[in-house]
Amino acid sequence: MNIDHLRGLDAVDPLAAFKDAFALPAGLIYLAGNSLGALPKATPARIAAAVEEEWGSSLVQAWTTRDWIGAPARVGDKIARLIGAANGEVIVADSTSVDLFKLIAAALVAMPERKTLLAVRGEFPTDLYVANGAVDLAGGGRRIELVERDGIASALDDDVALLVLTHGHYKTAELFDMKAITARAHDVGAMVLWDLSHSAGVAEVDLNGAGADLAVGCGYKYLNGGPGAPAYLFVAARHQAALRSPLAGWMGHARPFDFAADYAPAQGIERFLCGTPPILGLVALEVAIDLTLQADAGAMAAKARRLGDVFLELAAMHCPRLVPICPGPGRMRGGHVAFRHPEGQALSQALTARGVIGDFRGPDILRFGLSPLYVGFEDIGRAVDVLRDVLAEPAFA
Amino acid sequence: MNIDHLRGLDAVDPLAAFKDAFALPAGLIYLAGNSLGALPKATPARIAAAVEEEWGSSLVQAWTTRDWIGAPARVGDKIARLIGAANGEVIVADSTSVDLFKLIAAALVAMPERKTLLAVRGEFPTDLYVANGAVDLAGGGRRIELVERDGIASALDDDVALLVLTHGHYKTAELFDMKAITARAHDVGAMVLWDLSHSAGVAEVDLNGAGADLAVGCGYKYLNGGPGAPAYLFVAARHQAALRSPLAGWMGHARPFDFAADYAPAQGIERFLCGTPPILGLVALEVAIDLTLQADAGAMAAKARRLGDVFLELAAMHCPRLVPICPGPGRMRGGHVAFRHPEGQALSQALTARGVIGDFRGPDILRFGLSPLYVGFEDIGRAVDVLRDVLAEPAFA
Repeated sequence: MNIDHLRGLDAVDPLAAFKDAFALPAGLIYLAGNSLGALPKATPARIAAAVEEEWGSSLVQAWTTRDWIGAPARVGDKIARLIGAANGEVIVADSTSVDLFKLIAAALVAMPERKTLLAVRGEFPTDLYVANGAVDLAGGGRRIELVERDGIASALDDDVALLVLTHGHYKTAELFDMKAITARAHDVGAMVLWDLSHSAGVAEVDLNGAGADLAVGCGYKYLNGGPGAPAYLFVAARHQAALRSPLAGWMGHARPFDFAADYAPAQGIERFLCGTPPILGLVALEVAIDLTLQADAGAMAAKARRLGDVFLELAAMHCPRLVPICPGPGRMRGGHVAFRHPEGQALSQALTARGVIGDFRGPDILRFGLSPLYVGFEDIGRAVDVLRDVLAEPAFA
Repeated sequence: MNIDHLRGLDAVDPLAAFKDAFALPAGLIYLAGNSLGALPKATPARIAAAVEEEWGSSLVQAWTTRDWIGAPARVGDKIARLIGAANGEVIVADSTSVDLFKLIAAALVAMPERKTLLAVRGEFPTDLYVANGAVDLAGGGRRIELVERDGIASALDDDVALLVLTHGHYKTAELFDMKAITARAHDVGAMVLWDLSHSAGVAEVDLNGAGADLAVGCGYKYLNGGPGAPAYLFVAARHQAALRSPLAGWMGHARPFDFAADYAPAQGIERFLCGTPPILGLVALEVAIDLTLQADAGAMAAKARRLGDVFLELAAMHCPRLVPICPGPGRMRGGHVAFRHPEGQALSQALTARGVIGDFRGPDILRFGLSPLYVGFEDIGRAVDVLRDVLAEPAFA
């Protein structure tokens, strides 16, 4: 697989033109979109307009005249199209961690007779931290049960209210089979909450196709919404009436501008809003989602998978001392590839110094994100060439 | 009090020059800074730099090279100087509603033997909604007791864990005596949580001078941080070790980038962070705080008070059918003046059509915010002239 072959893959890539829609520094190979997505070229002008024209000129009236107030649901409906959800099932709000808390607590409270929240060891820590915080505050004898990835099915019983899983693993990029696990959970009457942060925008996600109950996801990784972009949450339409957010802020009220003394949650997905929406973050996120919606979601997932396969194949050939820890070709994989190397941190720094940006997760894991809209096959070839050269240096040999 | 007198007041106003630091549309009299503060002229360029140079060029490395990761505490320390707090006692995070939830739940859990959360009827609804949500989730026989404003002292007893109050009332602009109420609450061993959304930046706020325990506040009103700006929270240094946020997200961890399995809250105020900080919102808020810190806080409060006194005096003279519902001259008042009029909503719309932006709160309340950095005394005179003219129209006469 030489450079001509990789260029050939780029030449027939139906998504190749999207790279020009991102403002990446010349010469940089950016493989950290799993951590912070790149800047769409359209974003600066749109933010400037929101700041100078909307905030600066329309001031407080912009909440209605520029429909700021509608942004969480409007952008949520757009994200819904990327993840197999329907209009009115997704809303943009708060951070992934806060959204996790809302949905975990809502589900636990809705099923008071069930005392177990089931989760998997080694998942992204914030998911487990937040689950613990929600279980502790909800009290009532509730507890968290942690199992290994292959222990989920046997741990699901009629005491489980909620199973919390990250769809794509942040270290290994392993993907759960959303449909099969959801069905198994439903067999025992449990709900499942999926964290899509490491899958939406880069792997197949079909929430309604899988019969999913609840989900949250991050706006700043593969969705390219910018640093600390607001997150989104999904509640299947059939569950919305029965679930109430414990974070009962005014924006989740049925009529927030009545300033009524009593809380009455909004009928639909808006009940999961809390405080005033972060408009600058929403504007940046919407630009990125609009761009992403111009691409075919199936093509994005297929390309990310192929980029990963190529990376793994080239690394096996040229960097045999890197130990892959992500699923190989033909197996379900999230948006990055990952390897172990005893000098992983120094290796990651050496790559950065040569213009290949991946990232490092302790104790010894190198990750390379494969955002399908701005990473090409030749980029992968060049990245592995740099990896090979760095690995040949005395420090790593 | 004619126009020359008002111009005379502007001429000796030590804050008059700040008006030029805001990008207000020509001819507009903007009296809704209590709802959304105006745009500082320095904000667009700073946001553009954060987007294009920091995000666009530094990408994920900007978390450290541009110190994004330090922004919540850095901007928190700056806000601390406006509200009488010390370094390490304030952090910027989430929305006011989410921050209320964190601190209410933390305080309730820290005092499990006390079952009452005390609050006042008619406060800003989200404060009461969120308090209810937190009390419900915490359970354990806890309850909310609502009293009238003058009933606080007699309701404080040794069953009260927490008293939640908005320092400045969102409708009437009444200000509580923070020091006296805090002392009374401490007498019975209760803590007080102050919502500063309608006082910080426009009235005297001296948290440590008052011996305050907890506070939250809004970034987008008198602090001019932009639509949906992140909020801030204050926890007195003496309480930090004993309080834990129920929203135990990774950014509140002592070592978030260790990705440890178990949650260990950060030692200081960072333990009240939850998810990834919203960088664009933080950047805009920091510009506005930096600008505000160039002004003398005492001068800001004095000017806002004087602007309100002048407004009330002119309205009494020219608009006798407006019924003031805010404290009069010489009494403690928040950042706006407020009046009742049976046609309040139509009146507010008619004022807007003539370039005087106030706002309306049901059923019949007109509010006029008096942001001291960009509202002048001549503006007040012109606003009352327009009010007088509109009130003379057949629809309102």
